[in-house]
Amino acid sequence: MPVISLMTDFGIKDGTVGVMKGVIWGICPEAQISDLSHMIQAQNIHEAAYLFARSIPYFPKGSIHVVVVDPGVGTRRRPMAAKIGDWFYVGPDNGTVTGLLEKAELQGWHCEFVELDQTKYWLSNVSFVFHGRDIFSPVAAHLANGVPLHEVGTPFTDPVRIQMPKPIKIEGGWQGEVIHIDHFGNVTSNIRIENLGDSMSRKEMIIIRVKDREIKGLVNTFGERPVGELISLVGSTGNLGISVVNGNAAVGLGVKVGDVVEAYIP
Amino acid sequence: MPVISLMTDFGIKDGTVGVMKGVIWGICPEAQISDLSHMIQAQNIHEAAYLFARSIPYFPKGSIHVVVVDPGVGTRRRPMAAKIGDWFYVGPDNGTVTGLLEKAELQGWHCEFVELDQTKYWLSNVSFVFHGRDIFSPVAAHLANGVPLHEVGTPFTDPVRIQMPKPIKIEGGWQGEVIHIDHFGNVTSNIRIENLGDSMSRKEMIIIRVKDREIKGLVNTFGERPVGELISLVGSTGNLGISVVNGNAAVGLGVKVGDVVEAYIP
Amino acid sequence: MPVISLMTDFGIKDGTVGVMKGVIWGICPEAQISDLSHMIQAQNIHEAAYLFARSIPYFPKGSIHVVVVDPGVGTRRRPMAAKIGDWFYVGPDNGTVTGLLEKAELQGWHCEFVELDQTKYWLSNVSFVFHGRDIFSPVAAHLANGVPLHEVGTPFTDPVRIQMPKPIKIEGGWQGEVIHIDHFGNVTSNIRIENLGDSMSRKEMIIIRVKDREIKGLVNTFGERPVGELISLVGSTGNLGISVVNGNAAVGLGVKVGDVVEAYIP
Repeated sequence: MPVISLMTDFGIKDGTVGVMKGVIWGICPEAQISDLSHMIQAQNIHEAAYLFARSIPYFPKGSIHVVVVDPGVGTRRRPMAAKIGDWFYVGPDNGTVTGLLEKAELQGWHCEFVELDQTKYWLSNVSFVFHGRDIFSPVAAHLANGVPLHEVGTPFTDPVRIQMPKPIKIEGGWQGEVIHIDHFGNVTSNIRIENLGDSMSRKEMIIIRVKDREIKGLVNTFGERPVGELISLVGSTGNLGISVVNGNAAVGLGVKVGDVVEAYIP
Repeated sequence: MPVISLMTDFGIKDGTVGVMKGVIWGICPEAQISDLSHMIQAQNIHEAAYLFARSIPYFPKGSIHVVVVDPGVGTRRRPMAAKIGDWFYVGPDNGTVTGLLEKAELQGWHCEFVELDQTKYWLSNVSFVFHGRDIFSPVAAHLANGVPLHEVGTPFTDPVRIQMPKPIKIEGGWQGEVIHIDHFGNVTSNIRIENLGDSMSRKEMIIIRVKDREIKGLVNTFGERPVGELISLVGSTGNLGISVVNGNAAVGLGVKVGDVVEAYIP
Repeated sequence: MPVISLMTDFGIKDGTVGVMKGVIWGICPEAQISDLSHMIQAQNIHEAAYLFARSIPYFPKGSIHVVVVDPGVGTRRRPMAAKIGDWFYVGPDNGTVTGLLEKAELQGWHCEFVELDQTKYWLSNVSFVFHGRDIFSPVAAHLANGVPLHEVGTPFTDPVRIQMPKPIKIEGGWQGEVIHIDHFGNVTSNIRIENLGDSMSRKEMIIIRVKDREIKGLVNTFGERPVGELISLVGSTGNLGISVVNGNAAVGLGVKVGDVVEAYIP
């Protein structure tokens, strides 16, 4: 059974996501559909790109991922489908795939992009403001039915990319920034385990600085320290994070996305 | 695979919707189930009726739609199943279907209604307060299995209707009201594209008034105007709406459901 | 088609639950997956245990229930799978199953427990902080594929139990406490219909006390009393509750989990 995921900034109260599923099942009745998130901050393509890149590799090969965080709906931004490694993307060409493309280039995955222009794979009436329902969901369902990528659109090679913030080298380590704050208030930075490299063998020596607070040493997991303690650890997708054991680090520190994080051995 | 949707005012934290799915899959293991919304304002049948009417036509023919916004649970309000055009409704007979019935009458769709009274299609224990789990979910699952409508209940012809607010004709146009505010703060009125009629050919001339603000002209989509601008446009389901480009119109205008909206050519 | 449910404290914005579904469908493509709740209060095992015990019996026999409310992730708490009566549990051994185990003992259901230690049923890389994705989801998917319980781990007999608060006998009735407040503000106590026993035949005589308010008599359902009235009734899972008709009892009374509730005939 084909697998489709949906990620949007639509929220969960207006029936819009439910309708996308109705459209998909009208075309591909056996699709399995996972809601990745519908609580992306409105129009925040950076947040969508980050969650997309870290989540999609856990889905089965051949799965199809619809992302509709689309400030440009109804304008000339390209509607797009892509194959990135083993996974398909369907959504606006606005940079949402940037993070996964960077992984693809590191890994040498094959990538293809098409501009959606075959209206026979769309709903018969296309609104100006809800391409998630009228274009992207039906195209995803047709791909799930086995329609080849090159049949739903015309190839192109220059997908839009956004600037994903990168950590910079400093004396003894790296300076990065906060890129995500999760439901628990755990803070994720863009400093990667690959950046830390050899330092990980001396991880009790690493100093993590954020908002004038210093944390000495990385732990492996929450349970190593008492409830309420501020800790730093490498999260489940390889990014350096800051947490409070059974607490909310973001609230406690007053941290927000974009704030500076440093990790170094003095 | 049969398609079922669920819409309730149950919220998402108490497991109640998850249990309804457990009950459905116990009877019809292959049902595809879409959550339309579980964030309907508590007991707000008008909101449910509006979302129901605009959403259901995007679902496949034969799909089954359970709505449980049910201030009268456990009282003598009829439990009901209906076929309205190509779609089934299962839920209380409290007016939730009014909007879709109005569409059915405009389109000449066939409609049938039964009062649920065949307890063999219910759970064996029926509580006083959770008919969504004990009656409506199992009946929906049996319909999904192909049990005919007339087997689950006794026909009747006078479903409850609620008053759906209608726009009224004014000099040069229409006076309506706000009927929905979505997750983004987009404001939807009950003035329909059919009301505007010929005026749509001169849409740059239409004045939209709401809360002492005037908007001149309708646009097609958000991207035509700069971020932060107050705009008016016909939404994806044909209703006149007011938005702020990449912003929150409802908060900006202080608008709430029921507030007056006018659209006219002076 | 096998049925799996997921209950976590992960919230709905970070893609974590969507990724668990991706992992499951990679192993068991035809699994039906129900979200029971992802809004459990962070690390609140008591809340998870209460919702688990009242919800699972409505799911089909053989269904598999993953619960990840896991303050001890990455420490030595046992990862566990269990068969409790007709249902499977997969998650940490931290007491989440306590309420359902109590039912099992009352009903004489057969129970088995294994400590998960067969890494071939896990993802190949296991993080320190996301066992829901790396261990519990894949094990659940393998169980859904028919792998026997004894193949995924090593049997044990002493699962962790938490103290579930029990009502105590008082003059003419019972003193219990608030154990759940739902989306509507309905208040649920731990006083059970079995405690009330013969008193239920004189239910108009029962006095319910909470926060210095007294309610005289139990009703069957909301519609028996006017909007806004404070009522008490036995809820759909057999617990004594306090509600306001079409209103929010918890807000109105200032009640919180743990507050005292009494029910007695004077």
